Amino acid sequence: MSTTTTDPNTPTRDPYPTRTVTHTTHIERREPVVWPGTTGGPLLDDELRTYDRNGFLTFDRLIEPDEVVGLRAELDRMCADPRIRADERTVGEPDSDAVRSIFEIHRISDVMAELVADPRLVDRARQILGTEVYIHQSRANLKPGFDGSGFYWHSDFETWHAEDGMPAMRAVSISIALTDNYVHNGALMIMPGSHRTFVACPGETPDGHYRTSLRRQQIGTPDPDTLTGFADRHGISVVTGAAGSATMFDSNCMHGSAENITPFPRANLFVVYNSVDNALTDPYAAPAPRPDFIASRETPLRG
Amino acid sequence: MSTTTTDPNTPTRDPYPTRTVTHTTHIERREPVVWPGTTGGPLLDDELRTYDRNGFLTFDRLIEPDEVVGLRAELDRMCADPRIRADERTVGEPDSDAVRSIFEIHRISDVMAELVADPRLVDRARQILGTEVYIHQSRANLKPGFDGSGFYWHSDFETWHAEDGMPAMRAVSISIALTDNYVHNGALMIMPGSHRTFVACPGETPDGHYRTSLRRQQIGTPDPDTLTGFADRHGISVVTGAAGSATMFDSNCMHGSAENITPFPRANLFVVYNSVDNALTDPYAAPAPRPDFIASRETPLRG
Repeated sequence: MSTTTTDPNTPTRDPYPTRTVTHTTHIERREPVVWPGTTGGPLLDDELRTYDRNGFLTFDRLIEPDEVVGLRAELDRMCADPRIRADERTVGEPDSDAVRSIFEIHRISDVMAELVADPRLVDRARQILGTEVYIHQSRANLKPGFDGSGFYWHSDFETWHAEDGMPAMRAVSISIALTDNYVHNGALMIMPGSHRTFVACPGETPDGHYRTSLRRQQIGTPDPDTLTGFADRHGISVVTGAAGSATMFDSNCMHGSAENITPFPRANLFVVYNSVDNALTDPYAAPAPRPDFIASRETPLRG
Repeated sequence: MSTTTTDPNTPTRDPYPTRTVTHTTHIERREPVVWPGTTGGPLLDDELRTYDRNGFLTFDRLIEPDEVVGLRAELDRMCADPRIRADERTVGEPDSDAVRSIFEIHRISDVMAELVADPRLVDRARQILGTEVYIHQSRANLKPGFDGSGFYWHSDFETWHAEDGMPAMRAVSISIALTDNYVHNGALMIMPGSHRTFVACPGETPDGHYRTSLRRQQIGTPDPDTLTGFADRHGISVVTGAAGSATMFDSNCMHGSAENITPFPRANLFVVYNSVDNALTDPYAAPAPRPDFIASRETPLRG
């Protein structure tokens, strides 16, 4: 069972205690996956049911081929820009000087700013979350050919809750493929249905944890028994698709990706929309909040 | 172009100079892929043509389910045996104390000895190589769940030629799946058709190279330009199959595999049959031959 340190000044008990526990616990999700509140929207009932059941939904072609070319060129430009490479928002590969991620792309690039405000993304996010939304995080994830490293299994919400103070599971990520995502070049792996269970992880968040965790996460990752149980119960879906395809997934999906040793780079844009009713508070289990470029505390995108 | 150091005492020039060259060169294969010489055999004409064209051939069920259970139990026993774990023939994972490979399994275990002499394997190897065969190498490759590391792109023949003194491309590997091989747990990736080209790699073989290369190979691996060209020309096949399935592949196939972060371990047995007409000589590009357990200098299995 979980053990939490309760603060008498905190009026309500944390429903998702993590990194304050002595061993792994599983907590059933309290929130809906698809929220009521908005009427209309581009997602069909079938799609909403799939998202509710699996915790994710894929689109073969959310972005048109000519737009992909433009976004790809912009990302290449950004990766080559010495100022952006030197920016603290750029994270390198653990074993090389290649770019692994660039955060807050919508503030670095006008092209990216236009994309994250695009109704094809925003309207889908609003429909899932049932309110107006704002951008919690945006980033480009690059997995270069030959030695692009992976991301170990994790729930984004576990980190966002512990380190950023996100109260509830009311955020949705949209990942847009700028290159073809094959089974062999480090595609996203999701355990469908895993979003219904919160995995509280032992291990205290170290000070400045994000500086290492964005390269290789070690705190806030589930134990092997949990992953084995989840994989046996839910299976593992490998999400592939051509450039221009996209995946929406719930903040609490158990997901990860393996390294990419193929010559085919894998570059995705990743935008997290949070409900305006789910604004960040103080971190639930970290000495200090992470920087704004990782977890925005801005006002709603539109409302 | 390649530059080789020729020894006036060597009567014939090495057709596949590697690790003596200053930069990468591509040399067209001289030998057949499917050799004439044997009559009859279990492989159908269609299968032989596929093997000739792609350099590999898969079998959905070469080994029966009850046999898989027995082999799996034997491998588990071997991995748990402290004498085998301490044996120099056992190679650990680079970042943990898990077993990565056990070499010469047919001399360590009677069960494995029986398998490598099984006509289902031996007759197929004889048919491809056109002569009697013997075992050049046998091993179990384990890719444990969560942190099983991969094998970077390489041609086996490049190493066997440089470090073991194998004269010609007249060996065939048979890999037998003891667990299900999925796209997501570190499956074998092969570039079909790559077996027609020898990639001579720069970089001198260090003394005792096998001690590190069996954990993580760095010398004898092709350069990025070669791999990009090969992947564009040949594509990448990901070889999946249930436990009991098998893959035969040519000694000069360009192949590799990514890490396994899933909870599903991947365990394969791997037997290399060499033609009795292709006996090892002195290494072509290494200070000393590798130990017998990696590259056997024994007499033919049967003849």
